[in-house]
Amino acid sequence: MQSVPVRIIGAGLLGASLALRFRQRGVHVSLEDSSPSALALARDLGAGEIATQESPAPGIVFVATPPDVAGVVAGQALLRFPGAIISDVASVKASVLEEVRAYVREHAEGAEYGEAISRYVGSHPMAGRERSGAIAADAELFVGRPWVIMPHSEIGEENVGRIQQIALDMGAYPIVMEAAEHDASVALVSHAPQLVSSLMASRLRGCEPQALELAGQGLRDLTRIAHSDPGLWARIVAANSAAIADVLEPFAEELAGLVTALREGAGNSMAPGVHAATSRVLAHGNEGVARIPGKHGGPPRIYAEVFVLVPDRPGELGKLFSDIGAIGVNIEDFQLEHSHGQSVGRALLLVDPSARRTLARGLEERSWQVVMEGNEEA
Amino acid sequence: MQSVPVRIIGAGLLGASLALRFRQRGVHVSLEDSSPSALALARDLGAGEIATQESPAPGIVFVATPPDVAGVVAGQALLRFPGAIISDVASVKASVLEEVRAYVREHAEGAEYGEAISRYVGSHPMAGRERSGAIAADAELFVGRPWVIMPHSEIGEENVGRIQQIALDMGAYPIVMEAAEHDASVALVSHAPQLVSSLMASRLRGCEPQALELAGQGLRDLTRIAHSDPGLWARIVAANSAAIADVLEPFAEELAGLVTALREGAGNSMAPGVHAATSRVLAHGNEGVARIPGKHGGPPRIYAEVFVLVPDRPGELGKLFSDIGAIGVNIEDFQLEHSHGQSVGRALLLVDPSARRTLARGLEERSWQVVMEGNEEA
Repeated sequence: MQSVPVRIIGAGLLGASLALRFRQRGVHVSLEDSSPSALALARDLGAGEIATQESPAPGIVFVATPPDVAGVVAGQALLRFPGAIISDVASVKASVLEEVRAYVREHAEGAEYGEAISRYVGSHPMAGRERSGAIAADAELFVGRPWVIMPHSEIGEENVGRIQQIALDMGAYPIVMEAAEHDASVALVSHAPQLVSSLMASRLRGCEPQALELAGQGLRDLTRIAHSDPGLWARIVAANSAAIADVLEPFAEELAGLVTALREGAGNSMAPGVHAATSRVLAHGNEGVARIPGKHGGPPRIYAEVFVLVPDRPGELGKLFSDIGAIGVNIEDFQLEHSHGQSVGRALLLVDPSARRTLARGLEERSWQVVMEGNEEA
Repeated sequence: MQSVPVRIIGAGLLGASLALRFRQRGVHVSLEDSSPSALALARDLGAGEIATQESPAPGIVFVATPPDVAGVVAGQALLRFPGAIISDVASVKASVLEEVRAYVREHAEGAEYGEAISRYVGSHPMAGRERSGAIAADAELFVGRPWVIMPHSEIGEENVGRIQQIALDMGAYPIVMEAAEHDASVALVSHAPQLVSSLMASRLRGCEPQALELAGQGLRDLTRIAHSDPGLWARIVAANSAAIADVLEPFAEELAGLVTALREGAGNSMAPGVHAATSRVLAHGNEGVARIPGKHGGPPRIYAEVFVLVPDRPGELGKLFSDIGAIGVNIEDFQLEHSHGQSVGRALLLVDPSARRTLARGLEERSWQVVMEGNEEA
């Protein structure tokens, strides 16, 4: 890991998590935050010293402020810390890059502008965010997560490599992508899905409680992210609204066409329009979901499914996994399905198709109730 | 369990699964199906004998045909089997009830009509359906699942009780609900969510592969059911199109309003309209998702979350759950998060908040890397 001193500006969840990881590796970290109490908390948690005039000049600066001020703070840092690489962690990048450029252009000229802007490397570590603040910080926050790094036309190439190395040191998986492409990508895979999930969940507000007793795993999965924080998401969505509209506009058009077909088909279950419209939506959905990569960045893999009934008592899952370990099969994914009104769960085990029979037979020999059937509600 | 002979009409997944469970309990089962090969397969799997003139007269008949013929087949059964209770398992109920009534009205009169229709009890066991056919049948298919039973104005009350008892014997959780309410409920919690998931997944068809590398657990959960079968869903949606339109029409209107706000806010991240519209959508989603019941039919419970890093090797999950068993904490829910490009997974353990600290400390003592942080992508 690089060993130059690091300055973290913004001691919230992401800033403090970065700081903890740097400190674990023996790097000197100094902290800034507009809130003295946030700063004291981060220091007390071991994230580093509070920055003073005596702090060593940083070689790397991470701006981890709220996204609406990240551009100006990063621009200031480029001029405050000559020679340092300045990065930020905002989740929307094109607007931040423009703000950095505008700030530096206003406060520096000619060669000075070019030198300063060459040291700005935007990044977006896609790490957990359900709770905020340094109190939730963790040195392992970035492990196994994508970390997007944004080159731009005026960047110093070697600086991209430095931030990539830091991402790797944090345990993350660096991906290099231009800011506009990044923003369009997160609009598609994160921001639009968040709004769609929330819109669906909001339909549940007025219904009879009994209707919700029929809810299955499909609805639960679809609405899981509807628990997200409105304030945080208002800022994210506002910063990327054009790209999100580009995703949701065709979605809305297709939905409106579907609603029309449904209305025309009402009372006539043989109406060809409904059948055709529904089949098309489902088939296109099949195509789209098949493109989501599988684990470890490889192509999507088809796993075989094995269901096991698991009594809802301490130790039962432990016994199940001990038995799976004894059978010697690797579990690729695992889900517990909620059961309604019964003290038994259905565990879904995904395994390589070649291992399915071995697993099912081994579990049955060990007295587990194995169900070889699918998992969709209808 | 009741012990009168049972007739199953339609030897697919649901019919054969019902049959297997009845047979396990020593009940005589005879089978009908329009396909001789489907019939032979179900018999060979142990689901019962192929019905002939010599088969005992059934006291209970389950119609498990495709939904578009269920009403006529159930109506015929009411007249073919005097005194027998006739049920069906179609996933949309109001149209089936109307078809049964119309059939019986046409073929029986006066007191005969009233006697026949009193023996019809519609039901909807909400069981797995990803694969179809008797080959996927399982006597445990209904265990822990809701099983909706539909009274109507001409029903014999004691017949409702008989089907309720059968649902319990199948391991399911009976819920009594009128047909129109059932259809509106499944439109809300199952049919509309399916279409929303497919519409979102269909947005992924045209994008650059690199965009999908940024996909997190939120998108994966949202689009899981987008793998569903277009043909099956076209039939389900066509049979319930008015109720589904009632859910999706306000969804579409709210979405259109949001898209307008996003377009107005583009290039101006401080635009108040985007902030307000997004906060409202998210807050309404928070309210809606909070109404989904928790496990075992109780009120929604708040669980505490503990993340654990799990190396992707055989036996590691087994070791984790043995250790959890030794710590003595009951796991309420469990998810494995996919990591991108790394041979490590993040296991999310949901536990009673009072057990969180015990679990985290116990795991750390056993050398697991524990992360006390949330699970949302941003």
